[in-house]
Amino acid sequence: MKPFILLLLLLPLLSQAQDKDRKIEFPDIPGFQTLVCDLHQHTVFSDGSVWPDIRVREALYDGIDAISLTEHIEYQPHKSDIPHPDRNRSFAIAKESAKDKDLIIIHGAEITRSMPPGHSNTLFITDANKLVVDDPIEAFREAKRQGGFTFWNHPHWTAHYPDGVAKLTDMHRQLIEEDLLHGIEVVNEGTYSDEALNIALDNNLAIMGTSDIHGLIDWLFDIPGGGHRPVTLVFASEKSEIGIKNGLVNRRTVAWHNNSLIGKEDFLVPLIQASITVKSVDYPGKSTVANVELVNNSDATFILQNTSEFTLHDNPEVISLAAQSTTTIQVKTLEKKESFDLTFKVLNAYSAPKEHPTIKLTIDK
Amino acid sequence: MKPFILLLLLLPLLSQAQDKDRKIEFPDIPGFQTLVCDLHQHTVFSDGSVWPDIRVREALYDGIDAISLTEHIEYQPHKSDIPHPDRNRSFAIAKESAKDKDLIIIHGAEITRSMPPGHSNTLFITDANKLVVDDPIEAFREAKRQGGFTFWNHPHWTAHYPDGVAKLTDMHRQLIEEDLLHGIEVVNEGTYSDEALNIALDNNLAIMGTSDIHGLIDWLFDIPGGGHRPVTLVFASEKSEIGIKNGLVNRRTVAWHNNSLIGKEDFLVPLIQASITVKSVDYPGKSTVANVELVNNSDATFILQNTSEFTLHDNPEVISLAAQSTTTIQVKTLEKKESFDLTFKVLNAYSAPKEHPTIKLTIDK
Amino acid sequence: MKPFILLLLLLPLLSQAQDKDRKIEFPDIPGFQTLVCDLHQHTVFSDGSVWPDIRVREALYDGIDAISLTEHIEYQPHKSDIPHPDRNRSFAIAKESAKDKDLIIIHGAEITRSMPPGHSNTLFITDANKLVVDDPIEAFREAKRQGGFTFWNHPHWTAHYPDGVAKLTDMHRQLIEEDLLHGIEVVNEGTYSDEALNIALDNNLAIMGTSDIHGLIDWLFDIPGGGHRPVTLVFASEKSEIGIKNGLVNRRTVAWHNNSLIGKEDFLVPLIQASITVKSVDYPGKSTVANVELVNNSDATFILQNTSEFTLHDNPEVISLAAQSTTTIQVKTLEKKESFDLTFKVLNAYSAPKEHPTIKLTIDK
Amino acid sequence: MKPFILLLLLLPLLSQAQDKDRKIEFPDIPGFQTLVCDLHQHTVFSDGSVWPDIRVREALYDGIDAISLTEHIEYQPHKSDIPHPDRNRSFAIAKESAKDKDLIIIHGAEITRSMPPGHSNTLFITDANKLVVDDPIEAFREAKRQGGFTFWNHPHWTAHYPDGVAKLTDMHRQLIEEDLLHGIEVVNEGTYSDEALNIALDNNLAIMGTSDIHGLIDWLFDIPGGGHRPVTLVFASEKSEIGIKNGLVNRRTVAWHNNSLIGKEDFLVPLIQASITVKSVDYPGKSTVANVELVNNSDATFILQNTSEFTLHDNPEVISLAAQSTTTIQVKTLEKKESFDLTFKVLNAYSAPKEHPTIKLTIDK
Repeated sequence: MKPFILLLLLLPLLSQAQDKDRKIEFPDIPGFQTLVCDLHQHTVFSDGSVWPDIRVREALYDGIDAISLTEHIEYQPHKSDIPHPDRNRSFAIAKESAKDKDLIIIHGAEITRSMPPGHSNTLFITDANKLVVDDPIEAFREAKRQGGFTFWNHPHWTAHYPDGVAKLTDMHRQLIEEDLLHGIEVVNEGTYSDEALNIALDNNLAIMGTSDIHGLIDWLFDIPGGGHRPVTLVFASEKSEIGIKNGLVNRRTVAWHNNSLIGKEDFLVPLIQASITVKSVDYPGKSTVANVELVNNSDATFILQNTSEFTLHDNPEVISLAAQSTTTIQVKTLEKKESFDLTFKVLNAYSAPKEHPTIKLTIDK
Repeated sequence: MKPFILLLLLLPLLSQAQDKDRKIEFPDIPGFQTLVCDLHQHTVFSDGSVWPDIRVREALYDGIDAISLTEHIEYQPHKSDIPHPDRNRSFAIAKESAKDKDLIIIHGAEITRSMPPGHSNTLFITDANKLVVDDPIEAFREAKRQGGFTFWNHPHWTAHYPDGVAKLTDMHRQLIEEDLLHGIEVVNEGTYSDEALNIALDNNLAIMGTSDIHGLIDWLFDIPGGGHRPVTLVFASEKSEIGIKNGLVNRRTVAWHNNSLIGKEDFLVPLIQASITVKSVDYPGKSTVANVELVNNSDATFILQNTSEFTLHDNPEVISLAAQSTTTIQVKTLEKKESFDLTFKVLNAYSAPKEHPTIKLTIDK
Repeated sequence: MKPFILLLLLLPLLSQAQDKDRKIEFPDIPGFQTLVCDLHQHTVFSDGSVWPDIRVREALYDGIDAISLTEHIEYQPHKSDIPHPDRNRSFAIAKESAKDKDLIIIHGAEITRSMPPGHSNTLFITDANKLVVDDPIEAFREAKRQGGFTFWNHPHWTAHYPDGVAKLTDMHRQLIEEDLLHGIEVVNEGTYSDEALNIALDNNLAIMGTSDIHGLIDWLFDIPGGGHRPVTLVFASEKSEIGIKNGLVNRRTVAWHNNSLIGKEDFLVPLIQASITVKSVDYPGKSTVANVELVNNSDATFILQNTSEFTLHDNPEVISLAAQSTTTIQVKTLEKKESFDLTFKVLNAYSAPKEHPTIKLTIDK
Repeated sequence: MKPFILLLLLLPLLSQAQDKDRKIEFPDIPGFQTLVCDLHQHTVFSDGSVWPDIRVREALYDGIDAISLTEHIEYQPHKSDIPHPDRNRSFAIAKESAKDKDLIIIHGAEITRSMPPGHSNTLFITDANKLVVDDPIEAFREAKRQGGFTFWNHPHWTAHYPDGVAKLTDMHRQLIEEDLLHGIEVVNEGTYSDEALNIALDNNLAIMGTSDIHGLIDWLFDIPGGGHRPVTLVFASEKSEIGIKNGLVNRRTVAWHNNSLIGKEDFLVPLIQASITVKSVDYPGKSTVANVELVNNSDATFILQNTSEFTLHDNPEVISLAAQSTTTIQVKTLEKKESFDLTFKVLNAYSAPKEHPTIKLTIDK
């Protein structure tokens, strides 16, 4: 007989879960702002199921800094209802919808071809209508003429490669050589590809992660259950379209997917170092075991393998620092020290397939 | 340092919350099935923000039995993108989308006029295009010719009546007299109207509750937080379009909104009686205080005022029976009885403004 | 594959649930502080299962202002292990345990007799050993000599009255007449008694609610599930032992049990009025429907029956204001008003069996 | 205004969290039952804060198979209240309290000396009174005479070793040599020791994990937040006192602490293999990417590092299998296979400091 008391105490918790906790949050790194970008999305203007205004609201709820509605140029299943000769409508409506909002709408489109070259997104374009050309390479060239930054979508898609293994073709090599292809999705929707990551690293392509959303973000990525959409973290010198473009062009990205961070060590390490700060250190009484309070102000729950010279007093080698939380660890420093270093291999971060960056935390009293 | 254990135990709970708990569930009543209907909805084909397939999936997630996509006949803000001369497209797409699903799609439309008569939905029509006529009364007549069941939408809308008070006009009286208007929304989206309920009762109009959704059900009605959309419970002799139509035509409805049930006593009382069943009764030891286990197998948390001859041993007069739960109450029957009756006024059910039905529970050992 | 993200977002919510949300919080009323008191508890020093320090920590976690460890004088089941001739040990240990804490420990004991007079607690005594006397009335007299405030425990206990109906005996009448009995439990553990409330009102006894805890508060009252222990809210002119004593002696109490508040209207109405404050009022656009934001800064989820001259635009007559939350209601005032009154019958508050106080909220722009 | 609906849907979830989810559950392994044991606990009969019946109920709630109330022989801070010359009382009361319950109470005591040898628990004794002797070694000998299994408690305790580093002394070597010391706590309360694990492995001592609870399990290990007490999993040929004793004597144990499993590979590998079962495998359409459903029917959330010849299609190298859940992983097997193997290093399991066992899952269509 305690329905009210039982439950109503949870009310503030629940509303919090909806309003604040779905925002994707990572700290800035030295020299750059960390911008959360989802640059592959669809609406009713190609094969998606929502009007562009829903994409804007989803992005605002998720704390996204920039989105692009990359409608298929060549695939128009709603054509009988939306004949729309103007391929720029989706962008225009989203732009209007985000008018007074803190959200950057990037003009983009998906060049949708069979393999090779498969599907590619191009961003920062000025007129998507001009991408309607027969020859695929010509479409990439038109994108470049408009200033486009272009990346290969889901290179590991089983509809193109039934084995799910991303493989570079001669056409892709040509596109890269002619500076027509600048990035590659390592993460698309719910999928990830080790081989795509290798292609990115071998060819200096920007490492991208995108939702490729067609339906609803809330449903596909289980937002009520604590899930998140995949995004690309772009390290930008300013929060603007040009800032993001420069970040992409200079390959300053990390993909964020399912609690994994994937990117080059140059950006991964500063990002994780910025995420974890030392709040306090204390030796209680005569003990030489230090209580170290670590604050993780990122959305990643870090899985850390202790590679320090010291062992821990509370846990074995592999520990985790829960997202957006404070964790206290106990370090056996053998004597009371004014300062000491801890090093950890970050097991949920990848600078290459099976390669994890190491971070160093300097603990000063 | 206990991120994993802390949280992972909640995993099965959370997924349950998403998958099962959002379904709207009420038991059948003697002679009729209780069908959950949301008969006022919009998509991109008038002023909504989603393709019809999203409405179908929302309905399936919510355990809805029947929906109608009642696009505005006269209001077409997306016209520049979706010129669609055929006003039946929304229905056709939804029908296709629900093809193999346990969901009834009712062909409907919203006759959208200034006051009087304001906005009205008509259901079970055959061709929405024919509703495109100048004279509003003629639109109602065409609806009727097609077999339409027609109800007045949000009669308390502040855009039409700034005081929010639903008022019958001469035109409405004429529509009722000519059997062109058969129902009235007492609940629309987040609003309720005592005065609309009085109009329904005075004129024998079906009592309707609808979501009038334009955006996303999950967001507007806070589904992750445990909210629900308003619906009309229709008491039907079969689960079919014709069953629902007969239920509506015969005014066998209860509106379900924000934990309130609103309807005629003839349906309200059987619904609540069917929702609450006695699971067990027991007198422990020498005590003459009976432990009575009550099962509430409905989505309503009933707020009950004890009007029995007996007082309770665990709580004062007003108790509640949490939705989809078992509650034990302790009844002071003064002697050990083979059988006794409990009566409760149901404070969250309304047969008229400020009028609550009374239920009787017979407790047999 | 999303265990981390799925769950770790809930971490701050969960810890909140543990640390803060279990505190029992009600606002002060004009002229008095509202002190949360649980004045009937047991430890291993009579028939309880914990050392007194656990009672202190439970109280601190629950935000209790004052407790009393009222060991049975006459019932000592642990006697073979704890012979303790000194009946004051439990108090002394608790006092020491609470030394630097914001918790008042009141010296008390339970005079444990068969009916009549049954069990009674006496508080503010100086030496429990002196209560070890044969004649029950003499025990009450000794309590009074020590300055004791004495109340009848669970007068509706089925071990004493199998029908659960509290009944005054001649001995009780004598105790009241001689000013030896000053209060009565209307709520004990999980039970409540209408008849005890009538006895309290008829004889001007203080209305008491207590946990009578023997095991663990967390288990018995389902703290993790949002439950709370029953307590007596004492309205005191200062937060001190003497303040509480004066409050009790002057019958300034409200019992808090299972989301019900039980007390005299003189204290119930100010308490509820202090709990609900108007945060904002606003007429949007041309509408004369006022949005009124109400803040409930108490632990009670108020179930309110609208008795105002105005109807509501969002809900029918019975609404609820969730504990420690803000709720917006929409009021149809028919014209834009600078000021208006709302009145509500409070259905989960009782000034007598089946009698509910009415509160008035004045809404000023 | 949706307090009810918002929250009441959570009711079944919450009660589940209390009743079922706190049980510690691991599967049996080939040849042995996996018994959950907490063999280091205190009550008011030494320096704990609860009567033995609370320990019994905590254990039942936690799904523990066996407990021991190991009161300090030499440390009796409650002596003034509980003089008790009989050191066997705590065991006797717990035994009585667990009479009809599925819980084994093991007679034990804590030999509580300064270093060396520090504190040690002895189990399966017959008379704790006889352990009251001056010479520490004699106490161990008496324990052995009674058939005791004896283990070193918290060898890394900072009160004994301020640096928290467990170190074997000559006296410990002697005890081991004389077969007077048979196990060692690698986990005690919230602490873990790499060095203790090395001592266990080097000297063939049983690896133990215990709660060493003095207050309440629910509070110390944050049961409402999903935490668990540390325990020793004993692999026994029968669920009985003798089964547990044989398991301990033969060093068949794994410690379970904070989502880490610590033990010898001989038991760790079968335990993890038994915990993870393959539910289904499926190649959708033409794809050669296999969907593999893995069921983890243990309380551990396994953190797995993929060491298979195949890469995954949904996640990089390190994945996790949430406790008591089903997880689908996507494996790129390059061709459709009737059968294939997956191998994973289990990062939250330890066969030695920094050493993780590897498991093999054979996937058959």
